[in-house]
Amino acid sequence: MPELRKDPILDRWVIIATERSRRPSDFAPTAVPVNTGESVFSPGSEDKTPSEVFQIGRDASAAANSSGWNVRVVPNKFPALHPDGDLDSRAVGPFDAMNGVGAHEVVIENPSAAWDLADASVEEMGNVLEAYIERNKVLSEDERFRYILTFRNYGSTAGASISHPHSQIIAVPVVPKQLKDQLDVAKAHYRAKRRSIYGDLVRQEIESGARIVEENQHFVVLCPYASRFPFETTIYPKRQQHDFTAITAEEKLALSETLPRTLKRIKNALNNPPYNMMIQTAPITSPRPGQSDYWGTIAEDYRWHIDILPRLTQVAGFEWGTGFYINPVSPENAAEFLRDS
Amino acid sequence: MPELRKDPILDRWVIIATERSRRPSDFAPTAVPVNTGESVFSPGSEDKTPSEVFQIGRDASAAANSSGWNVRVVPNKFPALHPDGDLDSRAVGPFDAMNGVGAHEVVIENPSAAWDLADASVEEMGNVLEAYIERNKVLSEDERFRYILTFRNYGSTAGASISHPHSQIIAVPVVPKQLKDQLDVAKAHYRAKRRSIYGDLVRQEIESGARIVEENQHFVVLCPYASRFPFETTIYPKRQQHDFTAITAEEKLALSETLPRTLKRIKNALNNPPYNMMIQTAPITSPRPGQSDYWGTIAEDYRWHIDILPRLTQVAGFEWGTGFYINPVSPENAAEFLRDS
Repeated sequence: MPELRKDPILDRWVIIATERSRRPSDFAPTAVPVNTGESVFSPGSEDKTPSEVFQIGRDASAAANSSGWNVRVVPNKFPALHPDGDLDSRAVGPFDAMNGVGAHEVVIENPSAAWDLADASVEEMGNVLEAYIERNKVLSEDERFRYILTFRNYGSTAGASISHPHSQIIAVPVVPKQLKDQLDVAKAHYRAKRRSIYGDLVRQEIESGARIVEENQHFVVLCPYASRFPFETTIYPKRQQHDFTAITAEEKLALSETLPRTLKRIKNALNNPPYNMMIQTAPITSPRPGQSDYWGTIAEDYRWHIDILPRLTQVAGFEWGTGFYINPVSPENAAEFLRDS
Repeated sequence: MPELRKDPILDRWVIIATERSRRPSDFAPTAVPVNTGESVFSPGSEDKTPSEVFQIGRDASAAANSSGWNVRVVPNKFPALHPDGDLDSRAVGPFDAMNGVGAHEVVIENPSAAWDLADASVEEMGNVLEAYIERNKVLSEDERFRYILTFRNYGSTAGASISHPHSQIIAVPVVPKQLKDQLDVAKAHYRAKRRSIYGDLVRQEIESGARIVEENQHFVVLCPYASRFPFETTIYPKRQQHDFTAITAEEKLALSETLPRTLKRIKNALNNPPYNMMIQTAPITSPRPGQSDYWGTIAEDYRWHIDILPRLTQVAGFEWGTGFYINPVSPENAAEFLRDS
């Protein structure tokens, strides 16, 4: 019998279709090919991207936009949102519109096109996290922005148009509804119980153990109870913290081991599948016009985390029409496979 | 400058990235191939599917599950939800679960595997609509169900695993959150103004004309102001009606012309692209235990409609992480192309 499961924070139902349950080897994902050649993100091609806004590794004496970097952050050449201009929020007949003001940056994670984040050394992963954190901090000072998403598309079927390893950072001028819905639930839970709903969740998942992929001193890696997709995986910090950029040096070091190891498990279990990875963090909490006390207990009630979605199944009419998802692999099975991978 | 637009009913933002704007010919969708062979849904293979629950076209004297049908509805052989059993709603630690009770049926739209809904005659489309309506009515009598989605996946990248032309009907035991959110907005609008928000929207879209693909006596075909996807298209009835199955004979005839013509425009403009089509209708409104007066003014405030989503772009980390969508074709451009196609 299939099982309907509800995400406790998102109010989203999924169908765990256990009779359709499959082993990882039953999926035939097209393995993401390794890019062994040069790309527009390769050293020596720095003039093919917009001028860099951050880099790690190059001597302070060297010229900007020259080679010698380990990680390099540049504005997206074809940005979804533009960094200049006013928001100009306006009514258009019955509709609401706003200028597409925002930031869209590319984190080039390594000089080598063939390098893979799943194989990153602690130092390499640390550099990438450092780039994420620094750019998040700088962008959060722009008063026009409300929310910043750091994400990674791996493989063309996961939306990556350039195969050289990179992540993206997009700052948007409104808080997404799907985050607001989560914040509302987290706030209500905190008001009622004086505890973070994420803390309750993580503790009970550890006690159960059934969906745990890995637990270490600072992080818990698990397959969510109401996973939308086969092998969906979330990394939670054990310490209550709403803001990803407030990670401690010790946590950063632990994440530099935990995140590549988690990606490696997925790579091993599923033959290097395409995936999307998103760092889900709180909206920018420094006061914006008209919202000085808007965020309330967010530091206590919301917790940042990293979602990894292997892209093995199609999103189709049923999912678009209902917001329900059909997942042919139970998270318990997925966690077991990933633990052993 | 890109533009941020908010859907007036869904509170969902999209980025219309006009600087990335492209003509239909700039998309290179893989044209959905025509299936000229036999399939498990072909006449003569009736024993390869579960026993039919509805058919049109066969003589009353002929045996069930024999050939001679024009449209045939069968339970899905690999159902996402099971028709038997109790719901058994229960708490699992901090989570909510329910048995995966529901219905999952396949509407085989035509005996010929090579036939296409975009080329359907009025009579053929009328038969398919008749099958949708009859099965929706029968399933809505089951007290365990709350919502029924009728949808169509066209092409393998849109999730179709069998290419013989078919639609699917899924009945679920809970009302999806994304529909509840819309119902809440529609109800609040009605309380404030005594008008349907859908009626207001359709009227203003007709007045503007910019996003209208076609208007006839009974239906309006338009590209929504906050389209998530390039060439996203919605068909609204002009008459206020929350329940798709309550369509009049005259409306059914008009829809039998309007829907194939709309699909044909998309087929012509975009080289036979994959798409998802969903009939969005009200939840089952006959009272269920504990909700005798739950639906209030739904007959006046919500309006059924048909969404068509051509699948030309990838959903990636940004969309999963924020619920925002980036659309490289403005709905005004899309409507203009479709009007001329």
